[in-house]
Amino acid sequence: MTHTVAVSGASGYAGGEALRLLADHPEVSIGAITAHSNAGERLGALQPHLHTLADRVLQETTADVLAGHDVVLLALPHGASGALAAQIAERSPDTLVIDAGADHRLESAEDWEAFYGSEHAGTWPYGLPELPGQRARLAGARRIAVPGCYPTTSILALAPGFAAGLLETSDVVIVAASGTSGAGKAAKPHLLGSEVMGGMSPYGVGGGHRHTPEIEQGLSQAAGERVQISFTPTLAPMPRGILATATARLRPGVAPDAVRAAWEAAYAGERFVHVLPQGQWPATKAVLGSNHVQLQLAVDGRAGRVIVTAALDNLTKGTAGGAVQSMNIALGLPEQTGLEHQGVAP
Amino acid sequence: MTHTVAVSGASGYAGGEALRLLADHPEVSIGAITAHSNAGERLGALQPHLHTLADRVLQETTADVLAGHDVVLLALPHGASGALAAQIAERSPDTLVIDAGADHRLESAEDWEAFYGSEHAGTWPYGLPELPGQRARLAGARRIAVPGCYPTTSILALAPGFAAGLLETSDVVIVAASGTSGAGKAAKPHLLGSEVMGGMSPYGVGGGHRHTPEIEQGLSQAAGERVQISFTPTLAPMPRGILATATARLRPGVAPDAVRAAWEAAYAGERFVHVLPQGQWPATKAVLGSNHVQLQLAVDGRAGRVIVTAALDNLTKGTAGGAVQSMNIALGLPEQTGLEHQGVAP
Amino acid sequence: MTHTVAVSGASGYAGGEALRLLADHPEVSIGAITAHSNAGERLGALQPHLHTLADRVLQETTADVLAGHDVVLLALPHGASGALAAQIAERSPDTLVIDAGADHRLESAEDWEAFYGSEHAGTWPYGLPELPGQRARLAGARRIAVPGCYPTTSILALAPGFAAGLLETSDVVIVAASGTSGAGKAAKPHLLGSEVMGGMSPYGVGGGHRHTPEIEQGLSQAAGERVQISFTPTLAPMPRGILATATARLRPGVAPDAVRAAWEAAYAGERFVHVLPQGQWPATKAVLGSNHVQLQLAVDGRAGRVIVTAALDNLTKGTAGGAVQSMNIALGLPEQTGLEHQGVAP
Amino acid sequence: MTHTVAVSGASGYAGGEALRLLADHPEVSIGAITAHSNAGERLGALQPHLHTLADRVLQETTADVLAGHDVVLLALPHGASGALAAQIAERSPDTLVIDAGADHRLESAEDWEAFYGSEHAGTWPYGLPELPGQRARLAGARRIAVPGCYPTTSILALAPGFAAGLLETSDVVIVAASGTSGAGKAAKPHLLGSEVMGGMSPYGVGGGHRHTPEIEQGLSQAAGERVQISFTPTLAPMPRGILATATARLRPGVAPDAVRAAWEAAYAGERFVHVLPQGQWPATKAVLGSNHVQLQLAVDGRAGRVIVTAALDNLTKGTAGGAVQSMNIALGLPEQTGLEHQGVAP
Repeated sequence: MTHTVAVSGASGYAGGEALRLLADHPEVSIGAITAHSNAGERLGALQPHLHTLADRVLQETTADVLAGHDVVLLALPHGASGALAAQIAERSPDTLVIDAGADHRLESAEDWEAFYGSEHAGTWPYGLPELPGQRARLAGARRIAVPGCYPTTSILALAPGFAAGLLETSDVVIVAASGTSGAGKAAKPHLLGSEVMGGMSPYGVGGGHRHTPEIEQGLSQAAGERVQISFTPTLAPMPRGILATATARLRPGVAPDAVRAAWEAAYAGERFVHVLPQGQWPATKAVLGSNHVQLQLAVDGRAGRVIVTAALDNLTKGTAGGAVQSMNIALGLPEQTGLEHQGVAP
Repeated sequence: MTHTVAVSGASGYAGGEALRLLADHPEVSIGAITAHSNAGERLGALQPHLHTLADRVLQETTADVLAGHDVVLLALPHGASGALAAQIAERSPDTLVIDAGADHRLESAEDWEAFYGSEHAGTWPYGLPELPGQRARLAGARRIAVPGCYPTTSILALAPGFAAGLLETSDVVIVAASGTSGAGKAAKPHLLGSEVMGGMSPYGVGGGHRHTPEIEQGLSQAAGERVQISFTPTLAPMPRGILATATARLRPGVAPDAVRAAWEAAYAGERFVHVLPQGQWPATKAVLGSNHVQLQLAVDGRAGRVIVTAALDNLTKGTAGGAVQSMNIALGLPEQTGLEHQGVAP
Repeated sequence: MTHTVAVSGASGYAGGEALRLLADHPEVSIGAITAHSNAGERLGALQPHLHTLADRVLQETTADVLAGHDVVLLALPHGASGALAAQIAERSPDTLVIDAGADHRLESAEDWEAFYGSEHAGTWPYGLPELPGQRARLAGARRIAVPGCYPTTSILALAPGFAAGLLETSDVVIVAASGTSGAGKAAKPHLLGSEVMGGMSPYGVGGGHRHTPEIEQGLSQAAGERVQISFTPTLAPMPRGILATATARLRPGVAPDAVRAAWEAAYAGERFVHVLPQGQWPATKAVLGSNHVQLQLAVDGRAGRVIVTAALDNLTKGTAGGAVQSMNIALGLPEQTGLEHQGVAP
Repeated sequence: MTHTVAVSGASGYAGGEALRLLADHPEVSIGAITAHSNAGERLGALQPHLHTLADRVLQETTADVLAGHDVVLLALPHGASGALAAQIAERSPDTLVIDAGADHRLESAEDWEAFYGSEHAGTWPYGLPELPGQRARLAGARRIAVPGCYPTTSILALAPGFAAGLLETSDVVIVAASGTSGAGKAAKPHLLGSEVMGGMSPYGVGGGHRHTPEIEQGLSQAAGERVQISFTPTLAPMPRGILATATARLRPGVAPDAVRAAWEAAYAGERFVHVLPQGQWPATKAVLGSNHVQLQLAVDGRAGRVIVTAALDNLTKGTAGGAVQSMNIALGLPEQTGLEHQGVAP
C-alpha cells in the first residue's frame, strides 16, 4: 500500500533532494508540496531537475495543508518545526513527522540553548540507524529527527572505535570539507559562485559550529562516556559532498589489527556504509546523489592515532536520504527501499 | 522476463554510465562486464560509484565472453566494434548489439572516410527515437548505433524547424560546450583538472570535428534536403553536460508564432524532451545524470534567426541513456523503463 | 610624476580589479577609495586579496570625495555616472573621468533607450584602443567610456575582417561564455556557487542582451556599414574569463589565405592582442588576470564562413585593464604601463 | 645590476610559475629555459599564459646550458638535482643554485631514506625566511632548498606557538587541502578534470606522506624539541591553493590571550604573512597568484586546543614565490622585490 508524503520547504536544497528521492520511491506517492515565500509557483521553475513534478504548484506551509498525510517531511529553518508538528498531531495523530532541521536532535537542553540561543523544543528519535541500538528506536516511530550532515559523517567515521573501547575520549580532532549546498539556497555574497569556485576557506572554527555538540552526543553514546572533540568545518568548491578526516588517539596497548577489525565488524551488515579495501580512498564523487558512505582508516604508528576518512553526499545520506532511510524503518518497509541507486560519477 | 546484458569498455565513462543505468533497470540483469587493459581488476577500484557492483571482476573483451547475452553494449574506441559484432553474431545471432561508438552511425562511406580515415564499417539503425519515423526502425532491431553526444543535442535542437520547413538550410551555426567526460578517461595533459578547472577553450574549429557530418546527416533527414552547418565545440569546466546554442535563418514569411508551435508540436508526446516555458532557460545541471533534455527557443527579429538552446547530459541521454532507451524499444519494453529518475541538482 | 587616482565602486568586482591593477601601477598613487553601502568598512574585509591596501577605509561615493584627483574611475551601476561626472567636472575640470559602466558607450540614443529604458546620458570616447583610429581619440581625453566585456571580445574577434571588407554584414553569429564575475557581486540565487558549479546555461537569448547594440556599433564602425549580429551569452562555471565564438560568412571570392593575413596585419603592432600560431586555441586560463587577448581563426570551407574564437579576462582586458590601458593613453604614458604581467595559470 | 637566471623544468607547473614571477621581476633577466622531453619546443605552446616569453625555445637541461648564470632554479623530479648542481658548480662556482625539489630539504638522512627510498643528497639552507634565525642562513647563500608547499603552510601555521613554548609537542594534527597543481602536470587518470571537479578525496593518510618529516623538522626547530604530527593531505577541486587546519594542545596554564599575541608578535614584521583581524578567515582565493599567506587562529576552550588555519598559493609562496623570496635574500636584494603584487580574485 502506498504511503502519502508531504514535503515542506520544497524550494530549498533539502526539500528538493527529498522530492527527488521520493519521486522515484516505489512505495510512496507525493502529496502536498509546500514552501514559504515561493508558495504559488511552479515547482519546475524552482527545481528544474525534478522533471516529472515540474507542473506541481507549491502550497503554503500550514498544518492544514500538511495534516492528513501518512508522512510529513519538514525541511524548515530551525525553530519552526516544533509548533507545526504539534498542530499536525492535533489534526492527524498517526502522521509520521520527520524533521530535517536541527530542532529535535539534541538531548541536552543546555547545549541547545548555548549553541542555538533559543528554547529547546525537545528530543525526537535520532535518525541514524547505523548507531548501535538505534533501529529499534526508529521502528514504528512517529517522530524522527534527521541528523545533521557533519554529525552523520563524523559519527559514522568514529563510532566503531569508541564502541569497541579502542579510542581515547579526548584530543579527538575532526576536520571536514563540505560542498556549498550545505549552506543552503539563501543568497549571500560569500556563497556566490565567483567567491567559492576555485578556493577553500574555513568557518566556525574554535568549537563554535552548531554541529559540535551533536557530534559529541553521538560519539558519547557510542563510547558510553563523554567524548570531547575539536571540530573545524571548511567550505569546498563543489555543490555537494562532505569529506571528513577524523582522528583520535589509540588507547595504550591497542593492536593496529584490532582497529580495522572493529570498523569492519561494525559495518559488516550495513548496506550503505562501506569500509573500502585497503589502498582505496573515499571520494565524495563516488557517493554523489546516493545514500552510500565510504570509509577508510589508517593507523599512524608514529603519532599513535587512528585516522578515519569518510565521504558522503550531504544532501542524500547527510539529509534527505537519511530521512527516507529512517522513514522506511518507521513505516516497516525494507530499509533500502528507494535508495538503492548508485552514485553519479564522474 | 529479465534480459541479460553484457557491457564492454566498462572501465571508461560510457561503460560506467551504462552500468549505472542498467544496475537500476528493472528488466535486465547484468552479465559479463569486460574491459581491455583493466581485465582482471575489481570494478569497485575503477568505478567506485557503482557500489552494488563493486566486487564484480572485469573480464576480457572477446566474442566468447560477450556472446550468449540477450544484449551486448559496446563502448569501445572507434574501429573496434564491427569485427567484434560479426563474431558475436556467429555465436548468438539473436543478440542485440548496441554500439556506443561511432563506427556505424554514418550513412555516407565517403564522409566516414574523410573524417575518420578508415574503411566504413556499415550503417546500423540510428538510436535517436525522437527523429520522425525512427522508432519504427528501432523496434525489433538487432543492431543499434548510438548517436554521438553533440549530434543528439544538435539534432534535437533544430530538427523540428527543418521538419516543418521553417528554416534555411545554409548558415546554420551551432556552438556547443561540453563537459570533460566527453573527451574520455584516457589521461592527456590538456584534460588534467589543473588545466580545465576555471577555464574554457574551443577545439576542432572550422568544420573538422567528427560529429559535423553526423549532425548534418540528422538535420538533412529531418529537412528532406541537404543541410550544411558550421559547428564549433568548446570544452567547459564541468564533468558532464552539453549546452548547445543552435541558430538558423528563418525562411521568408515565417511567423514567429509558428516557430514555437513547431517545436512544441514535435515534442508534445515525448517523455524526455522538454520545451521549457518561456522565460526559463535550459541548464545542464537540471538534467545531470538523467535522460532528460531541456530546450528553449527564441526568435531574434533583428537578425531574422531562431536561436535554440539545448541541454542534456552527454553520458546519459548523450550516450548510455540514449542506448538504454533504444534498447528498450528494440526489446519491446516501455521506452522509459529504467530511465525515469530525475536530474541530480544542485 | 605620479598621478592620483580615485576608485569608486570599490567593493564590487570591477572596482576591486581596478584597485588590484592600480596598486601595482608604477605611475599612479591611489587616492580615495569609495563605495555605497560599504562606506566606512576596511577594504581588507571586502577585497581580502588586496593585501597592501587592506587597512584603507572606504569613503562615500560623492563628488566632494572624488574631485581633485587626476583620475576618477567610476565602477557604478548604470544610470549613476552622468550626474556624478558633471559634479566632479565643476570642482576639478581637468580630472580624467573613466566610466566603467555602460552609460556613455552607445552613440545611438535610440538604442540606449530601447535596451536600457532610460534617458541617454551622452557618448564619451570609446576605450578600445585597438579599433582603427581610436588611439587618437583617446590621447588627451578627459572622458572615457570603458567598453563592455562581451563587446571588447566580440569586436576584437571580428573587426579585422570587417575593416578589410572580407565579411558579409548579415548572418553574423556570436556565442560567448562568460565567467560569473561578469554578473557582479550582488547576491542572487541563480549565481550561488551551488547553482553554477558544474553546469552551463544561456541567458538573454534572442537579441535582448544589452551588449548587442554595442557590439553592432563597434563592428559597424570597422565595416563602414551596418553590421547585424545574433548574440547569445552563456554562463560558465568559472569566476573569470570570456570565450567568444564569432562566425561570419565570407564575401564571394575571398581567398582563405587573405583571411588569416587580415587578422595578423591588424594586430601585428598590438601588444595585448595575439593571433595564435595555427594549431593553438585560445584559452581563458592563459589570460587570467592579465590584459592579454588570444585569438585563433579558421575558415570553414564547407560552410563558407570564418570562425574566430577569442579569449580574455572579463575583469582585466574586459573592464579594469582596458580602463587602465585607455587611461595610460589619455595621460600620455606608455600604453602598457602597469599591464605587462603574464596570465596566472594553471 | 641585473642578475641572469636560468630555469629548468620549465614545462611543468613549478617551472612555469617561476618564469611568471621572474618575467616581471625588475632585477633579473631570464637566461636559459630548459626542459627534458619538451626541449626544442616553443614555450608559448606549453605555457600559453607566459605571453612575453612565448617565442622562447626550450633547451636541454644540462650543466653546460645552465652554468654561467648568476642563478639557476631547478624544478626537477626528486633525485635529479644533486648531481646537476655539482656539475654546475664545477663550471661556475659562484652560481646560486635553488632547488625547488625535495632532495636537499631534510637534515636527517634516515628520514630521507625512509620516505624517499634513495640515498640522501645532503642538506642545503632551508628557504623559509620567516623561521627564526633563517634569514641569516640565506644571506649570501649559494645553495637553497625550497620548502615543500605543505611544510611551508604547516610550519608557518604553528611555529609561533612552538617557539613561544605554548604548545604540547604531541597530538598535533594537521589536515590540509591542496589544489591539483600540487600533484604536477604528468597526466594520470585520477587527476583528470572529470575525476577531480566537484569532489574531494584524501591521499597518503596515516603518516606516509613525504612532507611529514619535513613538517616535523621545521616545527621541531621552532620548538627546540621533537614535535610529532599526524598529517593528512586531501585533494580539492581547484587548480591552486592550500588550506591547512593545524591544531595542537595548549600547555597547561596557557592563557588564551597569550596565544594570539604570540602569533601577532611572530609575524609583526613580516611582509607576506598576515594574521587576519578576528572574524575574518583565510581564503585560498585571496592569495591566488601572490606570495601572501593568511592566518587565523582560535582557541577552542572546550577541547583545550588552538586551531590555526592557513592559506597560501602552493605554486607561489608554496614553491616559486618562496624560491624568489629566498633568492632575493641570497642576492642581497630587498626581500619583496618582484613579489609585491596582490592576489587575483575573484
